[in-house]
Amino acid sequence: MRAGPSQEDIRRHNLGALLRHVHLGGPTSRAELTSRMGLNRSTIMALTADLAAAGLVREELPRETGRAGRPSLVVRPESARVHVLAFDVGPDRLVAARVGLGGVILDRHESVRQRGTFGLDETVVKLAGFAQRMRRKDTVCVGVGAAVSGGVRRGDGVIRFAPNLHVEEVPFGSALGGELGLPVSVGNDANLGALAEHSRGVGAGVRDLIYLHGDVGIGGGVIAGGHLLGGHEGYGGEIGHMVVHPGGRECGCGSRGCLESEVGERALLELAGRAGVEVGSVGRDAVRAVVDAADRGDIRAQEALSKVGDWLGLGVASLVNIFNPEMVIFGGMLREVYLGSAAQVRSRVALHALAVHREKLRLRTSALADDATLVGAAELAFSQVLADPLEALARAGNA
Amino acid sequence: MRAGPSQEDIRRHNLGALLRHVHLGGPTSRAELTSRMGLNRSTIMALTADLAAAGLVREELPRETGRAGRPSLVVRPESARVHVLAFDVGPDRLVAARVGLGGVILDRHESVRQRGTFGLDETVVKLAGFAQRMRRKDTVCVGVGAAVSGGVRRGDGVIRFAPNLHVEEVPFGSALGGELGLPVSVGNDANLGALAEHSRGVGAGVRDLIYLHGDVGIGGGVIAGGHLLGGHEGYGGEIGHMVVHPGGRECGCGSRGCLESEVGERALLELAGRAGVEVGSVGRDAVRAVVDAADRGDIRAQEALSKVGDWLGLGVASLVNIFNPEMVIFGGMLREVYLGSAAQVRSRVALHALAVHREKLRLRTSALADDATLVGAAELAFSQVLADPLEALARAGNA
Repeated sequence: MRAGPSQEDIRRHNLGALLRHVHLGGPTSRAELTSRMGLNRSTIMALTADLAAAGLVREELPRETGRAGRPSLVVRPESARVHVLAFDVGPDRLVAARVGLGGVILDRHESVRQRGTFGLDETVVKLAGFAQRMRRKDTVCVGVGAAVSGGVRRGDGVIRFAPNLHVEEVPFGSALGGELGLPVSVGNDANLGALAEHSRGVGAGVRDLIYLHGDVGIGGGVIAGGHLLGGHEGYGGEIGHMVVHPGGRECGCGSRGCLESEVGERALLELAGRAGVEVGSVGRDAVRAVVDAADRGDIRAQEALSKVGDWLGLGVASLVNIFNPEMVIFGGMLREVYLGSAAQVRSRVALHALAVHREKLRLRTSALADDATLVGAAELAFSQVLADPLEALARAGNA
Repeated sequence: MRAGPSQEDIRRHNLGALLRHVHLGGPTSRAELTSRMGLNRSTIMALTADLAAAGLVREELPRETGRAGRPSLVVRPESARVHVLAFDVGPDRLVAARVGLGGVILDRHESVRQRGTFGLDETVVKLAGFAQRMRRKDTVCVGVGAAVSGGVRRGDGVIRFAPNLHVEEVPFGSALGGELGLPVSVGNDANLGALAEHSRGVGAGVRDLIYLHGDVGIGGGVIAGGHLLGGHEGYGGEIGHMVVHPGGRECGCGSRGCLESEVGERALLELAGRAGVEVGSVGRDAVRAVVDAADRGDIRAQEALSKVGDWLGLGVASLVNIFNPEMVIFGGMLREVYLGSAAQVRSRVALHALAVHREKLRLRTSALADDATLVGAAELAFSQVLADPLEALARAGNA
């Protein structure tokens, strides 16, 4: 018979599982870990001691228990010894953050990016500069993750297509990794946003959800049965290029009538008569301005939002029929758009989604807001240390 | 530490894994099983002996090896002792089959169903009558599976919605189970068709595929990362109700412009000027007649197929962007439609699907043809015996 896993395999697995619990769930009492993980008290004590010795968790007395007797110690994630680096490369901005266990953003730098062609060298130098400024001697970097507004090849982090960065086939992962001297995991920003909302956002505990991310374009990430839908080569989730309006507006992808071209920033601003009116009239602020104007009674802004809400609702209805999700989350600029057009979206969903598919559906806005994709990049960076904490720490320490 | 699985757990798991290998892969030499399963020779011998003693496999000399030395015995699935019952409930027909290990259809009955409201009692009596006629004293029934053209609730087999059977909220699973005196697993026909093509059809070995099933309506099943996409409550895969043509044809679901209403049987026959022309002018034969007529140069039939192919291609393009599948499979009446409109479908996919998503995509017709949904029902019925063969056999023997 094939041998079962060794005691050491089980210990490593359990160390990762315990660390994941407190990383995602926050400070947790030993008693609760015992019951949640189905392990006995002495095992939890031993695991916690190992993680504490490695500087990954800290044990402390709870603030108050309200109960008599000896309180159970609380295990909390500790950020004094390790961190990850997270990067977010969007059409309008570059963000870099140093993130500790528990998902706490310890340091953060951001710069505005001019829309237009993605300059690989320039971007990498900028991000590496941020990393340099966030460097600390007393903690070890155990992972680097980057979110990119485009389709990214598994394994090597090549950006295959990114119509909104005006670029394709760029070896971003290896270039950034080379500059940092560390391996970099790269993912699609909307996919990472989906993982972030699923891990520590409004979709925590939801096994089937769809995250729609609006920026210049519309990206998507699908969590199906608790796992990110990757597809054959990792390019799954390009919901923005579902055709909702055959013969509709031209899309950056070369097609017409995509969800992206009907509900993206350009469509909204054009419909509201605000495209190119003044310098700086693009981006999140411009979208917010339309929603604010509609709130104040601006008819054209109201009509624009209503139209965009119709297409958004139609697209969401199709997705609801296809995926039977428990939740659909609107992130990025779609957060504002949804808040400004919820009635249209809901009425389209009622019209086009099957009754059984609608009955338990929840429509929500992103809890992580503009940080969803960055937080997702951080979670990607944490994945190795959560899989095998001591091994990842040893590897990082030797790097 | 939590204990690993016991030797007995591992043995049961391995018995199921070996049986699954020969059930899906057909006769396999012991040597090949040894290498494929990563177990040593003596373990394979012991497992095979247990399964042979239970009457689930048979060992025999290979026909010829072409090599010197003692040939490795071949293990083949054995259908003398156990079988499953599989049922397929479609808008136009009822099918029942007795299926042996290895997926061999040992006996089969079929009757035409008049379109119109689903009569629960009548259907159950008919299916149970088929089962009675297929009864054999020398073999044990180890599972019953049924495919239904509608949305089925997990667990209890209630048909929640089935616009093409003109019914909703019908306790089909419990009614059939009661009549047979055996538990029945019920699934959506297109989902089961997807599983069938994935297990033993054109999609064998393909981890990311979409199966589109045409009948009166259009159903879908998605295999994502090797697993059936179920969604929050098991109603996932209703691809037929993705809106491809806003404001288009009325759909049985109450919406308009669904993939189903634009490419289903009714649209094709109406566009070809053949709807309601003569009695019997519906169903698979009527669809084939349109394709045949187009082949012979009938302009109206050609235009109908071209139109339907456009919408089908548009829908497939959206699905390709959303799922990044390796393969899209056309089954049921869509097999004929695709064969008659492949040029349109492919040109729409080229127009609307992202280049990176298209580069490794394969479009294929169902290998199991009209039996895909029935074979899927049989696989559903086999799932318990493949999970734990001896336990399932003991349970069935005591029933």
